[in-house]
Amino acid sequence: MNEPVVVGVDFGTLSGRALVVRVRDGAELGTAVHEYAHGVVDETLPATGAPLPPDWALQVPRDYIDVLRTAVPAAVREAGVDPADVIGIGTDFTACTMVPTTADGTPLCELDEFAGNPHAYVKLWKHHAAQPQADRINELAARRAEKWLPRYGGLISSEWEFAKGLEVLEEAPDVYAAMAHWVEAADWIVWQLTGRYVRNACTAGYKGIRQDGAYPSADFLRELNPEFGTFVVDKLNQPIGALGDRAGDLSALAAYWTGLTAGIAVAVGNVDAHVTAPAARAVEPGRLVAIMGTSTCHVVSGTDLHEVPGMCGVVDGGIVPGLWGYEAGQSGVGDIFGWFVDRQVPPSYHELARERGISVHELLTELAAAQPVGAHGLLALDWHSGNRSVLVDHELSGLVLGQTLATRAEDVYRALLEATAFGTRMIIDAFTDAGVPIDELVVAGGLVRNPLLMRIYADVTNLPLRTIGSEQGPALGSAMHAAVAAGYYPDIRAAAEAMGADDGETYLPVGSNVEAYERLFAEYHELHDYFGRGGNDVMHRLRQLRRTALASR
Amino acid sequence: MNEPVVVGVDFGTLSGRALVVRVRDGAELGTAVHEYAHGVVDETLPATGAPLPPDWALQVPRDYIDVLRTAVPAAVREAGVDPADVIGIGTDFTACTMVPTTADGTPLCELDEFAGNPHAYVKLWKHHAAQPQADRINELAARRAEKWLPRYGGLISSEWEFAKGLEVLEEAPDVYAAMAHWVEAADWIVWQLTGRYVRNACTAGYKGIRQDGAYPSADFLRELNPEFGTFVVDKLNQPIGALGDRAGDLSALAAYWTGLTAGIAVAVGNVDAHVTAPAARAVEPGRLVAIMGTSTCHVVSGTDLHEVPGMCGVVDGGIVPGLWGYEAGQSGVGDIFGWFVDRQVPPSYHELARERGISVHELLTELAAAQPVGAHGLLALDWHSGNRSVLVDHELSGLVLGQTLATRAEDVYRALLEATAFGTRMIIDAFTDAGVPIDELVVAGGLVRNPLLMRIYADVTNLPLRTIGSEQGPALGSAMHAAVAAGYYPDIRAAAEAMGADDGETYLPVGSNVEAYERLFAEYHELHDYFGRGGNDVMHRLRQLRRTALASR
Repeated sequence: MNEPVVVGVDFGTLSGRALVVRVRDGAELGTAVHEYAHGVVDETLPATGAPLPPDWALQVPRDYIDVLRTAVPAAVREAGVDPADVIGIGTDFTACTMVPTTADGTPLCELDEFAGNPHAYVKLWKHHAAQPQADRINELAARRAEKWLPRYGGLISSEWEFAKGLEVLEEAPDVYAAMAHWVEAADWIVWQLTGRYVRNACTAGYKGIRQDGAYPSADFLRELNPEFGTFVVDKLNQPIGALGDRAGDLSALAAYWTGLTAGIAVAVGNVDAHVTAPAARAVEPGRLVAIMGTSTCHVVSGTDLHEVPGMCGVVDGGIVPGLWGYEAGQSGVGDIFGWFVDRQVPPSYHELARERGISVHELLTELAAAQPVGAHGLLALDWHSGNRSVLVDHELSGLVLGQTLATRAEDVYRALLEATAFGTRMIIDAFTDAGVPIDELVVAGGLVRNPLLMRIYADVTNLPLRTIGSEQGPALGSAMHAAVAAGYYPDIRAAAEAMGADDGETYLPVGSNVEAYERLFAEYHELHDYFGRGGNDVMHRLRQLRRTALASR
Repeated sequence: MNEPVVVGVDFGTLSGRALVVRVRDGAELGTAVHEYAHGVVDETLPATGAPLPPDWALQVPRDYIDVLRTAVPAAVREAGVDPADVIGIGTDFTACTMVPTTADGTPLCELDEFAGNPHAYVKLWKHHAAQPQADRINELAARRAEKWLPRYGGLISSEWEFAKGLEVLEEAPDVYAAMAHWVEAADWIVWQLTGRYVRNACTAGYKGIRQDGAYPSADFLRELNPEFGTFVVDKLNQPIGALGDRAGDLSALAAYWTGLTAGIAVAVGNVDAHVTAPAARAVEPGRLVAIMGTSTCHVVSGTDLHEVPGMCGVVDGGIVPGLWGYEAGQSGVGDIFGWFVDRQVPPSYHELARERGISVHELLTELAAAQPVGAHGLLALDWHSGNRSVLVDHELSGLVLGQTLATRAEDVYRALLEATAFGTRMIIDAFTDAGVPIDELVVAGGLVRNPLLMRIYADVTNLPLRTIGSEQGPALGSAMHAAVAAGYYPDIRAAAEAMGADDGETYLPVGSNVEAYERLFAEYHELHDYFGRGGNDVMHRLRQLRRTALASR
């Protein structure tokens, strides 16, 4: 037998990536990506072509299986290893992404009777239509002083299990009735791999409001809606698996899909951001890991429990055993840059980029990088996809201020990059103010490839920033969990030590930039509070007008 | 001899248009346009290639002469009339657009010694770099309670004669010393046509702070800057000509340029907006004429003197003799739409417009017109070129709020159209609140061609709106003044009666739209006051940061 290897599979928003890793030292031997055929379903339902309302974002679960069928064998082939040498497979997923299933795990959207019902599909993390339900959950929890509420920064997100579940109940009672399980996609994929449904401790804690071993009470749920009282018992409850545990053995069917050996270890499900911390060797307190892609997730471990206003959650052992795992996030980051390039960049830039053989992102970055801080005269709010932390409000929206007739695409692009950095700075300040120290920023995810963005983040946060040396942080982290599940390492800390990625680039804050950004951040902070904390609720009112106008059409 | 005709020449921001008109009935017989070779000089100085600071906007006076040399004879040729039948020529100009000249009227930029000095060029109306000077003028005038200040809504604009003149003195004392006259381009072109320098009553009143026959006192000017005390006497003072008066006879040189007969009547200079009121047969009180092009100028006559906060000015007989002429304006309108199409519309729209043989403006208008009011969820502030009325602040800037990842180009385009309508609504409300009634909106200028824009203006203002039937409102108005100057009609009212254009389209407000726009206008009003009236001076601070950043480079 050759050296043992493991496979990590990272299920992102638009694609799934498989990575083959040598267990001994974490060497990345081969990788492959599979783009989801349906991508993000946010305009029309595939089965019927029916238009979706604003704020909806669905996925098609078959796309996830296709990742197992194509990307996993392709990565093994690229690695040049014998599939028999693979001793385990681990996965991570976007969260909170929810699948309504039958008792045997079949997604309801795959049943003929529900193919035309949007509530029967996967509700992707960025599905934001359950805000009214989230508002009611928050209002009631605050009124009842539920003791779990401060563990979530005082606000439960519309992205999470309860808000989305209540939305199904109230808007599609037939789907709710047919739904035997309301399953995190992170657990659904492990169910598909093993034939067993194990609920992972990470999403159960961060997205499922599981604290100190319990969920919100039946009494609380009944008060939200009488029929919601049994939600936990009927739709959610399931044995919990700890991170790095073996969820089960690879089933014969999954072995057929992947080309791997039936019976090898399958790790308990996990979340893209959280698995990245060990991949970046950033499991110690004070190291804030930012996984920057379409959105950004921030995770940091701390020795003590603190209640941080506006954070996503704190879960005991939520990242690594023995420490409190803190999570925060920004709902739109790369998504905003992508939207801008697709929707607001004129032809001349596209032509120039094509001539030079670079992407429009690279061209805009190059042009924006040549500007001194503040030269564009712009300020933006990075809420095009709402605000996950610290406002936890997905009815907010984007803003660009300061345009003149001289404003160019690279100016707005830079202002948008900066706005997301200011958003991260708000989160870091919230942690620091609450007693969770942050002394280093460790960045993973696709956006590490933008050096201007990294420079801006170091300068805006005034923190040393290092990027992870692997291009596949989450998949590497999943592979490390597979190695633990297979019993090769005793725990994830040991796996991180042996298999963690090397550092990539390091960015130290530049004094003059830090100073200029302090001024701009003060402006951002003022607008943030004005539009986000009740000074002027115009963004909420415009959303409502938009809904009314579209409904009248 | 055939029927007498007159020529009107309208000098706009980017081009000059000549129109040949039959004196008897105002029939438009021929027209021609000449684009200025140098357009708006706002990036680099033509003579040296030296970069211009932000907020600068210059022109090259030779471009104006080229209009006389090319557009006038071309219009006469197109009209098929004998040049000998032309009995007069009248002109109108952008304002306040200022030419520094020698004693004989030669622009200083045409002297070798000054060709490299940007202050020696024409300062176009939208040159906004004299804001610090305007601030000092306003501060001092308010402190001294100068009685002319309320005639200008309480604020003197950085666009006008005194602010721009003080800017020359303080930033280019050598140019100031060499400058024998500080001449409105409206008067400079008449000087070129006649060989005589006559100052027109309209710009002297609206832009030159001439009220009740006097200018700001030497005492006031000295307090601004000791060397500015003689500004009026040295650089500005000149005999005043009333609107419709004969400024002089066409000179032999100008006859050579234009192909017309030396000795015919040349009307006193005038302003594009103001000449349009009679062209639209809108000389009676209550009819607000909006000339909508790159910017918008609003003029309306009233029977009584009222001091309207934030208006541009009120001048006795400033539009027609016997009535108080009120003026207000928006510094950026078509300019903003043009900027958006050039800078923020992605390739797919350009391709689709090309395929369909329409302009991108037409395509965006068509797409935007299909939306119910409020459906885009956006709100914009139309201050990309500052705010002329009612805030009189060119340090303000544009804002777009409400973007999501679903926001498309047509959404932003519509929000920008609406923002300019809200800006007009602010002006109408200011007039109404001050006792100047407005009961009809009469629209002229290039933007009348956009039916969605006209619809939005009628709905936002809740006023009946009619467009002028002539595509050449200002040039027609100038031609009418030529007919008066030539003695064919006793006054401009008689000329308007006989020669005024037919109505174009009529747009009546639609109740449901009016209601929806009331809500959006309330949001606009709140942001307008927050960012424009001291709630948050972030726009001013960003301008300052931009200047500092660019200077440091």
